[in-house]
Amino acid sequence: MPVIEEKPQDEKLFRIRHSLAHVMAQAVQTLYPGTKLGFGPAIDDGFYYDFILPKTLSDTELPAIEAKMRDIIAAAQTFSHEDLPLDAALARIEGQMGEPFKAEYARELADKKGHREISFYANGGFVDMCEGPHVSSTSDIPADAFKLHALAGAYWRGDERNAMMTRIYGYAFNTKAELDEYVAAVEQAKQRDHRKLGQELRIYAIRDEIGKGLPLWLPNGAAIRHELEKLAHEMEFRAGYKKVATPHITKRGLYETSGHIPLYEDGMYPPMVLEEEGRGAGGPEESYYLKPMNCPHHHMVFASEKHSYRDLPLRYTEYGSVYRFERAGALQGLTRVRGMAMNDAHIYVTPEQLKEEFQAVMKLHERYYALFGLTNYFMRLSLWDPADPKRGAKYVDDPENWALSERLVTEALEEMGANYKLSPGEAAFYGPKVDFQFITVTGREFTLSTNQLDFAVPARFGLAYTDKDGKEKTPYCIHRAPMGTHERFIAFLIEHFGGAFPTWLAPVQVVIIPVSDKFLAYGKKIEALLREDLVRVELDTSSATMGKKIQEGATRKVPILLVVGGKEETEQTVTVRRYGIKEQKAMPLAGFVEMLSQEIKERRHVKSW
Amino acid sequence: MPVIEEKPQDEKLFRIRHSLAHVMAQAVQTLYPGTKLGFGPAIDDGFYYDFILPKTLSDTELPAIEAKMRDIIAAAQTFSHEDLPLDAALARIEGQMGEPFKAEYARELADKKGHREISFYANGGFVDMCEGPHVSSTSDIPADAFKLHALAGAYWRGDERNAMMTRIYGYAFNTKAELDEYVAAVEQAKQRDHRKLGQELRIYAIRDEIGKGLPLWLPNGAAIRHELEKLAHEMEFRAGYKKVATPHITKRGLYETSGHIPLYEDGMYPPMVLEEEGRGAGGPEESYYLKPMNCPHHHMVFASEKHSYRDLPLRYTEYGSVYRFERAGALQGLTRVRGMAMNDAHIYVTPEQLKEEFQAVMKLHERYYALFGLTNYFMRLSLWDPADPKRGAKYVDDPENWALSERLVTEALEEMGANYKLSPGEAAFYGPKVDFQFITVTGREFTLSTNQLDFAVPARFGLAYTDKDGKEKTPYCIHRAPMGTHERFIAFLIEHFGGAFPTWLAPVQVVIIPVSDKFLAYGKKIEALLREDLVRVELDTSSATMGKKIQEGATRKVPILLVVGGKEETEQTVTVRRYGIKEQKAMPLAGFVEMLSQEIKERRHVKSW
Repeated sequence: MPVIEEKPQDEKLFRIRHSLAHVMAQAVQTLYPGTKLGFGPAIDDGFYYDFILPKTLSDTELPAIEAKMRDIIAAAQTFSHEDLPLDAALARIEGQMGEPFKAEYARELADKKGHREISFYANGGFVDMCEGPHVSSTSDIPADAFKLHALAGAYWRGDERNAMMTRIYGYAFNTKAELDEYVAAVEQAKQRDHRKLGQELRIYAIRDEIGKGLPLWLPNGAAIRHELEKLAHEMEFRAGYKKVATPHITKRGLYETSGHIPLYEDGMYPPMVLEEEGRGAGGPEESYYLKPMNCPHHHMVFASEKHSYRDLPLRYTEYGSVYRFERAGALQGLTRVRGMAMNDAHIYVTPEQLKEEFQAVMKLHERYYALFGLTNYFMRLSLWDPADPKRGAKYVDDPENWALSERLVTEALEEMGANYKLSPGEAAFYGPKVDFQFITVTGREFTLSTNQLDFAVPARFGLAYTDKDGKEKTPYCIHRAPMGTHERFIAFLIEHFGGAFPTWLAPVQVVIIPVSDKFLAYGKKIEALLREDLVRVELDTSSATMGKKIQEGATRKVPILLVVGGKEETEQTVTVRRYGIKEQKAMPLAGFVEMLSQEIKERRHVKSW
Repeated sequence: MPVIEEKPQDEKLFRIRHSLAHVMAQAVQTLYPGTKLGFGPAIDDGFYYDFILPKTLSDTELPAIEAKMRDIIAAAQTFSHEDLPLDAALARIEGQMGEPFKAEYARELADKKGHREISFYANGGFVDMCEGPHVSSTSDIPADAFKLHALAGAYWRGDERNAMMTRIYGYAFNTKAELDEYVAAVEQAKQRDHRKLGQELRIYAIRDEIGKGLPLWLPNGAAIRHELEKLAHEMEFRAGYKKVATPHITKRGLYETSGHIPLYEDGMYPPMVLEEEGRGAGGPEESYYLKPMNCPHHHMVFASEKHSYRDLPLRYTEYGSVYRFERAGALQGLTRVRGMAMNDAHIYVTPEQLKEEFQAVMKLHERYYALFGLTNYFMRLSLWDPADPKRGAKYVDDPENWALSERLVTEALEEMGANYKLSPGEAAFYGPKVDFQFITVTGREFTLSTNQLDFAVPARFGLAYTDKDGKEKTPYCIHRAPMGTHERFIAFLIEHFGGAFPTWLAPVQVVIIPVSDKFLAYGKKIEALLREDLVRVELDTSSATMGKKIQEGATRKVPILLVVGGKEETEQTVTVRRYGIKEQKAMPLAGFVEMLSQEIKERRHVKSW
């Protein structure tokens, strides 16, 4: 049985982090008298505090602040709590403390939230306006399990019309070992950042001439996309899906029917207003929109043919490109884009088929993730909330269908023994959904894919099949895309593999390195052989030394390097070096070709001989 | 050596057709006194004449008109010619002839074109205002080589504000054999019309909800598209092309650089005007356009990496969707659409590589066409026209590069012994081009693909590679797409194959027909086996008789039907029926799977056992 999902909480760690924020402020004010304080909260991996400082700080000054903090910790100062009536509190904040930003906030608490008292915490000579909670004594803080790691600029209360403050970030954990592990993970994440590797490995480019958030896939990135598309085709073909292909645009009316307009209009590109008989012809005008999702187009494919219950489940799949508007300021690498592709599908089922098909969809997801070696994930079942006072605006008002579909989806998950959590109130407008939640190397949780059961929209489009009893009935629809948007999935894979992709997915799969020009002809023969087999192969014809060529192959994280010289040519063999594996192996050329072909076909991730 | 292309002309046939138009008008006026005449020209396959008739005609009355025409032909009436001064001519047209439309036209000839005389031709008692030429006598017309075949409405002078006239169409040829052949070809073309077959075989649909000229590919059509895309991937991968993927939109500036704006703006969808920070945010605005071609996007991919002469030829290929504006009235099935895909590529070469690469491109085209069994085509080399007074507006003004590139392209064609014609003055703006001209089953000529050499646009984008001498140089670019737009190519293939596709391309490749429900399990086993191999297979589980199922398979033009019953299950064999082949064959299941796999892999078109 699932548990209701809750944010993991460590009450003790929260007190430590919060107390460290105070201790840091105390240290900074000691070192830099006259420093004024903003906010200083505990955050997911530690704490920060915002300051107006009498001087400009640099990274080199962080160790001195840390040292002063350790002194305070060693002094075992007790934290004490006190509530003061508003007037006395303001007198203290503006007098003894001299903190104008705190005073502004105290007044706001009184005016807007009706606070009649203000809460303070004190330790040593330091007093902060604060709701707590804190540790009892600074000696409760593990002195070796925190680290100041970054300086940043931040506007007071996040508003660019306010003063710019200096924010100091610290990591904080229960033990030094946890801190070290986390710092190492962050460092690794930086090394694996898809924006860094994406540039180094020439995966994608974003050009101002084309537009923000619209990645161009360079040959290396397009090869990865091609492999994902091919994988999706095979997986879905074998699971009985049928490919369709639909235009990237449509007339406005389609989105009025679906309800995307007006609900989702801000997430769409603005319309193209077309004069159907040509510019200035004075004929009828139509507003065309770039599609932000494929569903309404697939519904139109469904509507273009007659269907009997025998044809269901009918699974339409498309490697579809969609376009969504995001503010320029919100865009980020491949993880937040305006143009994206997905191996989308919409499955039309009868109510009787729903449970089994939903389960089949979940299992297909698991096959995808197993293939990539992804195991750190769980499912989250989002339900509606019949008690929500805004229920009418958030959900289709059809309690009977909510009950039925939530029961069927729950049974589907239970019967397959799924590892899932419940998230009440987070359902889609038109039905319950199951998200796949992944945990990245830095412990960040994100939604990779969403599987939605839709009992409402097919009726809006008038979709129907003829049932056994000869009556026209409305199908249910399952929306699914196991790899999510490929832009974000590829960003995730780049970081997951650290750029060292398994052979089937690698942009360049094999580089052939002749030990000298004398063996170019043999190299070319192998190149031709592999290219005929659709292997992404390169022959290194540069004038660099062999050592340099091998190093270059490793830098590019090419999974297989073939070194060929006199011995190899005479014996018709190759010497195979695999990325990340020390031992090299000589093998007959024919044997290598066969091994490579199987490795790619089975999409194996070879990590040792 | 090539010949300068000329439109094929048959002066004698032209006279016959033109004379038949007169003879038809004469017959109609005899049968329906009071009929007024519009225009009556010779056309590509015969003639027509426009009439205002005293009654509404139907198809059933055409034989009577034909019979009257044969009477006139049999009467051996002589054609005589006469020029009259304008006043006398008008007196005759409005008096003796009583033809108001002819009078209007005669006045226009005088007013707008300055004619002082009007030309007439007479035969028997019939006189027409006409420039000729005609046969000497109606007896020169072969009486058994023409046929009236259609009635249509047509506005006088094609203007809907004018009177609606009745147009009668006739075919006319030199001999009855030619006429019969043509009529049969037209009949076949009607049967093969991609709009008819496209609906019957459930290939595509066009929905008013999505928009005009924007086909939805139903599963059967998407399967064909998928196969073409796969074919293109294999052909181009093996030829050393590199896939890229680019967005469907771009900021306006890109098309200003390329010159598409303002030159081609009328052929594009109107812009989407985006506020980059969100609607109503008051931030910067940008105009985004749907791409009408892929070239500028590919140039941006090129610009995103550094290139040395060693990297060239660099061949970027993309299965790209583009959108072009066509007037709603001009759209037609899949042959004239607004949204289209193509296996596009842009090849960047040094001047030294140009000839060899251009030749390689031509040869790749030939391999494509051979694979589809297409042989009825020739190449057309379009050159610039340095003597054209509008040369400045039509061509890049760079005589040296025109001379060089035209010489190289000509040498490329000559050296490969190409069958080509010359078309002076028809070059692209930026260089010479070679079109592949195909002849359809009805003898219609159309351009399937265009290969353009571009020596101008890369410079506009500042594209460069580092040459051997260390200097930055501008590459030449070859634009090519051997299958043209896939919408039109698929329309052509549907008609070429009459819907009976070779196995590799067929939407449904195999249908398994169990002779009774007892053999469903064996059928399912075969289905699973084939689906695992990515074969598009169906198991016919309907309750129809075996004969009916076989007939249904033939109606759907499925290339392979497998009949399975007791004998087959016991012996683990299948009985194979091929579309269009009478003899069926029993073979071991494993042998069949192997044969099918080879047939699909080699893309063979099997027409007999």
